[in-house]
Amino acid sequence: MKNRQFEHEVLHEIQNRWSPRAFDHNKQVSDEDLYALIEAARYAPSCFNEQPWRYILGNTPEKRDKILSALNAGNQEWAANAPVLMVLLSKQNFTQSEKFNRWHQFDTGTAWGFLQLEAQKRGLITHAMGGFSVSAIQASFSLDDTFSVMAVVAIGYYGSPDTLSEKNKEKEFPSPRKNISELIL
Amino acid sequence: MKNRQFEHEVLHEIQNRWSPRAFDHNKQVSDEDLYALIEAARYAPSCFNEQPWRYILGNTPEKRDKILSALNAGNQEWAANAPVLMVLLSKQNFTQSEKFNRWHQFDTGTAWGFLQLEAQKRGLITHAMGGFSVSAIQASFSLDDTFSVMAVVAIGYYGSPDTLSEKNKEKEFPSPRKNISELIL
Repeated sequence: MKNRQFEHEVLHEIQNRWSPRAFDHNKQVSDEDLYALIEAARYAPSCFNEQPWRYILGNTPEKRDKILSALNAGNQEWAANAPVLMVLLSKQNFTQSEKFNRWHQFDTGTAWGFLQLEAQKRGLITHAMGGFSVSAIQASFSLDDTFSVMAVVAIGYYGSPDTLSEKNKEKEFPSPRKNISELIL
Repeated sequence: MKNRQFEHEVLHEIQNRWSPRAFDHNKQVSDEDLYALIEAARYAPSCFNEQPWRYILGNTPEKRDKILSALNAGNQEWAANAPVLMVLLSKQNFTQSEKFNRWHQFDTGTAWGFLQLEAQKRGLITHAMGGFSVSAIQASFSLDDTFSVMAVVAIGYYGSPDTLSEKNKEKEFPSPRKNISELIL
């Protein structure tokens, strides 16, 4: 964690989490672990308790391949080794009023925070990607504009950096952060 | 936790967290705790490591009062007892490219997830509000449209539900959640 200096002790799951690319292609994620991640996510708070987060679980070869093929080439290269690819969706309108929910992405992000810390607790690694074709995901899973396609997340176990390209191997470490003082206005 | 049935064991901080309104007016939050919450938030992942989250800490009477006065009357009623009110802001554009960051709210939500679980670990309670005047916050803190004003968060210690109005006392319990199966498309 050479890039990260902690000034305060925080949850171990936060302190040790980062976004690796070196997934172990041979180690599957159990259903128990996978559903526990959704369990963690669903207890996030949300505006009017709307719970706008939805998930497509790419945990079968067919669904996983559909998600993989929607990724940018740069992401496909390493994400191909992740046993699970998950799509994070966010419901744009409130269910009751049908009005636009200005917090839907924010709340879906909060649930993603919960999900990834539960993964970390269970010894899993996660890596969220923004580099993918929204229209390819929408077409593959027959989605309309009810949901925003926010991210694709790779989930699995840490493998060996030697499986990565030279370019990705050089990036295989925790990224630095702004100082606390830069975050306070 | 009568409203919540856990099918999988998840992080204690997730399992025990909810959003109470009964804050203890007499128990202050230490600076150590407050900055540790920002420490937790800053280690959230974000698109291109942009870290779009920013905070206004209402931990002095003057700043706290400015934030309190921007809340809807219904929120003011109970949030007046919270020793700290924090504004969650989100930077709309990428710093390097100056282009719109379509993940800024999502990523700021993730950091808020980390922040609240660290608060839970430290015995603090948190409650996010969407009911406030964005323009009042912007005017009080001289903010332009660089940042979206996403939420105001009350932070402190649990007090007594007897301090709440009858209406709020009736709502003072953890809210239910959708079933896991409803979240998977």
